Amino acid sequence: MSKNLTKRSEDYSKWYNELVVKADLAENSGVRGCMVIKPYGFAIWEKMQAELDRMFKETGHENAYFPLFIPKSYFSKEASHVDGFAKECAVVTHYRLKNAEDGSGIVVDEDAKLEEELIVRPTSETIIWDTYRKWVQSYRDLPLLINQWANVVRWEMRTRLFLRTAEFLWQEGHTAHATKDEALAEAEQMQDVYADFAENFMAMPVIKGTKTESERFAGALETYTIEALMQDGKALQSGTSHFLGQNFAKAFDVKFTSKEGKQEYVWATSWGVSTRLMGALVMTHSDDNGLVLPPNLAPIQVVIVPIYKGEEQFELISAKAKEISTALRAKGISVKFDKRDTHKPGWKFAEYELKGVPLRIGMGPRDLENGTVELARRDTLTKEVVNQDDLVETIENLLKEIQENLYAKAASYRDEHITKVDTFEEFKETLDKKGGFVLAHWDGTKATEDKIKEKTKATIRCIPLDAENEEGLCIFSGNKSTQRVLFAKAY
Amino acid sequence: MSKNLTKRSEDYSKWYNELVVKADLAENSGVRGCMVIKPYGFAIWEKMQAELDRMFKETGHENAYFPLFIPKSYFSKEASHVDGFAKECAVVTHYRLKNAEDGSGIVVDEDAKLEEELIVRPTSETIIWDTYRKWVQSYRDLPLLINQWANVVRWEMRTRLFLRTAEFLWQEGHTAHATKDEALAEAEQMQDVYADFAENFMAMPVIKGTKTESERFAGALETYTIEALMQDGKALQSGTSHFLGQNFAKAFDVKFTSKEGKQEYVWATSWGVSTRLMGALVMTHSDDNGLVLPPNLAPIQVVIVPIYKGEEQFELISAKAKEISTALRAKGISVKFDKRDTHKPGWKFAEYELKGVPLRIGMGPRDLENGTVELARRDTLTKEVVNQDDLVETIENLLKEIQENLYAKAASYRDEHITKVDTFEEFKETLDKKGGFVLAHWDGTKATEDKIKEKTKATIRCIPLDAENEEGLCIFSGNKSTQRVLFAKAY
Repeated sequence: MSKNLTKRSEDYSKWYNELVVKADLAENSGVRGCMVIKPYGFAIWEKMQAELDRMFKETGHENAYFPLFIPKSYFSKEASHVDGFAKECAVVTHYRLKNAEDGSGIVVDEDAKLEEELIVRPTSETIIWDTYRKWVQSYRDLPLLINQWANVVRWEMRTRLFLRTAEFLWQEGHTAHATKDEALAEAEQMQDVYADFAENFMAMPVIKGTKTESERFAGALETYTIEALMQDGKALQSGTSHFLGQNFAKAFDVKFTSKEGKQEYVWATSWGVSTRLMGALVMTHSDDNGLVLPPNLAPIQVVIVPIYKGEEQFELISAKAKEISTALRAKGISVKFDKRDTHKPGWKFAEYELKGVPLRIGMGPRDLENGTVELARRDTLTKEVVNQDDLVETIENLLKEIQENLYAKAASYRDEHITKVDTFEEFKETLDKKGGFVLAHWDGTKATEDKIKEKTKATIRCIPLDAENEEGLCIFSGNKSTQRVLFAKAY
Repeated sequence: MSKNLTKRSEDYSKWYNELVVKADLAENSGVRGCMVIKPYGFAIWEKMQAELDRMFKETGHENAYFPLFIPKSYFSKEASHVDGFAKECAVVTHYRLKNAEDGSGIVVDEDAKLEEELIVRPTSETIIWDTYRKWVQSYRDLPLLINQWANVVRWEMRTRLFLRTAEFLWQEGHTAHATKDEALAEAEQMQDVYADFAENFMAMPVIKGTKTESERFAGALETYTIEALMQDGKALQSGTSHFLGQNFAKAFDVKFTSKEGKQEYVWATSWGVSTRLMGALVMTHSDDNGLVLPPNLAPIQVVIVPIYKGEEQFELISAKAKEISTALRAKGISVKFDKRDTHKPGWKFAEYELKGVPLRIGMGPRDLENGTVELARRDTLTKEVVNQDDLVETIENLLKEIQENLYAKAASYRDEHITKVDTFEEFKETLDKKGGFVLAHWDGTKATEDKIKEKTKATIRCIPLDAENEEGLCIFSGNKSTQRVLFAKAY
């Protein structure tokens, strides 16, 4: 197959858009801003879901499901939340269509106007806390550790596949606790879970930190974030976990009787990751030949392509391929044997390269004679001839090696793109010429943050958790600062 | 715990509503007609999903995701579909809220009116076939075997938890084929998959058949259905699979080049089951004490309740309980050890009875001495004292036995409630006094079907696949008929 993929160095953004479509991950639909996630893309998302879901359950969470619609009035109950979310959203105003009287088609039935408009959920804090009021009476009912896998809608004006779409898929955890400390510990735990997932499954290094007040979730007292660096030097916020204090409990009147018999408001967290991670995955590892997938999330880890002339050769290779497939599957490795006779081997090689399959086995008549196969690595684009006898072990080791190699490569790129600067000139120059994360002193005020953003488009991605105390002067205002924060231009 | 559950014989409908809430399956939300699926209910749904998803994948299907919203005009493209679905639905007309100028709260921003209204999907044929047009060019692109797990909205006026809700969760398969025969075979295969799932996982016997023209899915040429019988003698349609002919291909212009180089329209199927199955599960097995769950779908298959006085006894029992749990888990059996000290054993027994846990282990100091446990079956409400040594094997066998017993019990109830009648008097009497399915001759006309429904509220549930050819006279019109069809009052 001919890939015809724009090079990253030519136009990174175009490369991304083309790759997502050509590799069969997703495409735009007939509905403005809404994407279709294609089977191959969805299979990757399913692998992400399965691992995250396992991690959530291992940390004591259960899944549940809450309504898609939220009555408009719910948004007004938490003051800062309404400013953040009651803006660009899909509003349901009617509940019936009818045939137009003039026969021109179907129209909205004006007699079926809702008394109160319903908002398609942009996030579910309000509807969930309205429910928790009924679930929590006593300290015995706490903690509530609940997660929901759902679709949400935010009416974005400029959309890009996976990165920013009007509808997207995500999970949202919503927990309720008896104490502040427990809620804080939960929010921090979920940041760790996200970092673990990003690093060990996506092979994507992340920096953990907290958001500044102006970058926090609307309604949160603290937002914990994991920030990753894409190949073009832009940051991507990859998961957030919020300590919500008692804001939602107060807004929705969720109280409990403590062990001591006192009435107290419940403490809350919420946390989420979305199909945006698919964009992060693409932009962390892929190259000018197409997708590069970490083995831990690849729907197909190994593909076997037969190279043959005539029925007889095909039968012999086919028998061997099935034997190899069975042995690999017994080790939990996913294998596809591509026996289509409608496409040539070279076409298939290019296709699997485009789709990022970590290992490709080519097998021809000579391999049969010699007891070998040709093994090609997607990450390094290298090939070697390997003995069939050791194949399963070789592949098991290689898959691990590829997973580690992808992480190491991304980590080294990321580390090379963290720059400490001490003047605003250096700051601007780094952003313009090198990109990546910039560690700089900031005076802690929103005014400075806003001005830096206005002048450079860079935002404070986070206040890193592992930052050292270091006296310094704000690169912009020259005022005193006690630690560096992490700036970057971001998706 | 006190259950306070209405008896089925008193008021079946009230019993159902109470049980769904008290057993923590679901509850109504603040949004009209939309339910909250609680963690315990959702855990059962997850088990259903996992098994169905496995079955779909084993039959070659892949998952994908299509937009929540459908432009209004899409509905008008397939003539019979529009009549069926462009009625009671949620209509998005605006995409922004703003603060009211008079400070009274947030209001819809009239400047943000959509040019074309968007409908929250009641089913996805139209948006999916609009997409398939781009995916199908040649016979090589076929078949497309795609499934979607999603939420859908149908604006029902009278709702009941799980059985009829404005928003519900479901899966919808949408396949595209080169030939009519292949599409028919697919539709039939999925009916078989549904029947297999219903019988072997839900332990719910079903009758397979086809729908009459007036009961078909809007846009289908044939609807295959599985029909189950609830304990109150009413039928519940539990899954449908539709042969859509070329209707959607023609409406959305989806053509392919055949092997012979001809341009042809694609053949379609669609098929779905929903959270309605949760209602069917409850109404097939449960009793006046609460839920009864088949082991194959129970989130907790075995619960261990310690009976003790003082810390020392608790520690000893606890150690043994952990040993048993580990041994059971190694066999893939899900176990919960309920060590809460906030509730007494009797309270816990009642709770797990209400929640339908198939097996309950009670363990006290005397059991420790004797090397026994008390094992209680939820389905028969019987108890026996069992040796700890054989416990794992005993439980494995019992779980199988319970699964089979539930099926056998439901099948025998169902079989006893299939009545052959030959006159309209008998027909009415059977419906009134005995309930259940009624096998009767019907003249094949919509007029007769409508009149029978009008007079008795019974509908033709299906034309059974295994019906024998049998000459007879329509119970209503007296006209000739060649086979009996299955009538019932239905949910």
